[in-house]
Amino acid sequence: MSKRIGMQTVKLDSKPRIISTTSIVGPKEGEGPLAKYFDIVLGDDLNGQDSFEKAEKTMLYTAITESIKKAKLKEEDINYMFSGDLLNQTISSNYAARDINIPFIGLYGACSTMAESLGLASMIMDGGFANYVVASTSSHFSSAERQFRAPLEMGSQRPPCAQWTVTGAGAMVLGKEGNFPYVTYVTNGKVKDYGINDTNNMGAAMAPAAVDTIKQHLKDTGRTEKDYDLIATGDLGKIGKKLTEELLKEYGYDIKDIYMDCGEEIFDCKKQGVNSGGSGCGCSAVVYSGYIYKKILSGKIKRALIVSTGALMSPTASFQGETIPGIAHAVSIEFGGNNHE
Amino acid sequence: MSKRIGMQTVKLDSKPRIISTTSIVGPKEGEGPLAKYFDIVLGDDLNGQDSFEKAEKTMLYTAITESIKKAKLKEEDINYMFSGDLLNQTISSNYAARDINIPFIGLYGACSTMAESLGLASMIMDGGFANYVVASTSSHFSSAERQFRAPLEMGSQRPPCAQWTVTGAGAMVLGKEGNFPYVTYVTNGKVKDYGINDTNNMGAAMAPAAVDTIKQHLKDTGRTEKDYDLIATGDLGKIGKKLTEELLKEYGYDIKDIYMDCGEEIFDCKKQGVNSGGSGCGCSAVVYSGYIYKKILSGKIKRALIVSTGALMSPTASFQGETIPGIAHAVSIEFGGNNHE
Repeated sequence: MSKRIGMQTVKLDSKPRIISTTSIVGPKEGEGPLAKYFDIVLGDDLNGQDSFEKAEKTMLYTAITESIKKAKLKEEDINYMFSGDLLNQTISSNYAARDINIPFIGLYGACSTMAESLGLASMIMDGGFANYVVASTSSHFSSAERQFRAPLEMGSQRPPCAQWTVTGAGAMVLGKEGNFPYVTYVTNGKVKDYGINDTNNMGAAMAPAAVDTIKQHLKDTGRTEKDYDLIATGDLGKIGKKLTEELLKEYGYDIKDIYMDCGEEIFDCKKQGVNSGGSGCGCSAVVYSGYIYKKILSGKIKRALIVSTGALMSPTASFQGETIPGIAHAVSIEFGGNNHE
Repeated sequence: MSKRIGMQTVKLDSKPRIISTTSIVGPKEGEGPLAKYFDIVLGDDLNGQDSFEKAEKTMLYTAITESIKKAKLKEEDINYMFSGDLLNQTISSNYAARDINIPFIGLYGACSTMAESLGLASMIMDGGFANYVVASTSSHFSSAERQFRAPLEMGSQRPPCAQWTVTGAGAMVLGKEGNFPYVTYVTNGKVKDYGINDTNNMGAAMAPAAVDTIKQHLKDTGRTEKDYDLIATGDLGKIGKKLTEELLKEYGYDIKDIYMDCGEEIFDCKKQGVNSGGSGCGCSAVVYSGYIYKKILSGKIKRALIVSTGALMSPTASFQGETIPGIAHAVSIEFGGNNHE
């Protein structure tokens, strides 16, 4: 029996439930407008470790193990851990997985990882391959900055279109049953590259992928933007968000009233000096696991389309003259009496 | 309906078929003992490109697109492309995916990627989410060496336990029907770290993971080593292979007669000066897609367990004093009248 709907979407009739989530953020994110929705705010962005990379790993470990505890489960109950991150060879995920007794599926989707991870996890649940699965990802401003851009000590100037990598980790545990928000559709994206080569303008590089995946999701499902209470992109920032809105309008979708970008919302961009907004795998991970999941649980949002967006370049690729390819994956999460159907 | 068997294994009753494969290797691999089993042998390891990274990407692109052609399909027929590689931010896969019109799921499993990719692809097929899927990966000696170890120009000495990253890319197209080799079981591994910190001794770092996954697979399925004509690990090399054999013996499994390691077989280790053998994601990818797939097709092997093994460290993690975690994923491939059942 095929679960395919349209060209790029699958429909999950078993409605895999998101039975618990944990979001953990750094001090700066803890001073932002969404602070009260996060489960744990660190007072120290090293989290007691001696490197930023190790700090990121411990955050991811905590997000995963806390989610499992919240779901009243043990590691042995979870059949797969899906995780990836931004660091070379995804070491935050690998080393977190070393300390967690769960079969591990490593992913790389840059900042699209939370939706990639949640989408795959949901399919694995719906396919009958698992009883429980955890989907997760993380990022850290200081580990990302020195790996992708320049040593922190250089104090590089940041152009207005630059984004600030979120220090944070998010995890979601999926189960088969219970009165929880559930996943109905997954739309996986194709790689799109419109020739942007400025690594300080990731929003513009990723916007075409977001547009393509949202448009394809609506086409495949026969829904319109009006069927959603919320469409949330991962980390396009102010500029990428504006481009996405405008490009979708050209295709006949006016998402303005229901559209947020996690990168724009997680910081007070002006006051906190983050220019175009937040970015990083952790950005959409903590906003989905924290703010959006809690809004859905409380009934304030009944149907959300979450769309994490990733910029798939590396410093080596950029040095070799490559432009920045983008990707976006979308997952539809629903809960409660829905007025739309 | 649950497809779970034991703790870490799933059984795929629909038997996803591997309907075509392509293996492409560099000049050195083309002089090795398995040369005649590879579909394409490059005369130039730059493959006409101006960097090794770009060369690797073009090899991966060719492996994928040739497999699709061989299967008499078009890119639009394929629902998902699963791929990952060793390079920072998996750029070979990302940039290959940019040129291929298929929704892309990026993976990172280091040298375990071929079995990770094939396993996930098989589950997605069996779950009813796809009509056709492509699973793939690549590596390149020169892009890996300068990223993980030292500039090639340094001419670093290689200790006897060192392995030589295979220049190669492999791809497999999966479909629902036809008289082709098929996947019956997938066993995903947990991360194992026994404290090895010598990045020139990856075989020893990965062996415990291989042992754990093979043992768990046999336990979960109720099979013994005698039920397989072949157990093939990815790239443990001579030393890791020996360790795996010995450790499995301690658990009561004597795999010696049916055991090969792709890393040991792809080169004539002594003559070709590769010390302990080949390594890299491309190693198991080309040996499975080339040698093993063809042996299965011809009826010489009726039931194979392929076990790709990955070392999940990064240079940054090593510099920060971390040891090397390993992982192994196993996929059971069968075909033809089997004498075992």
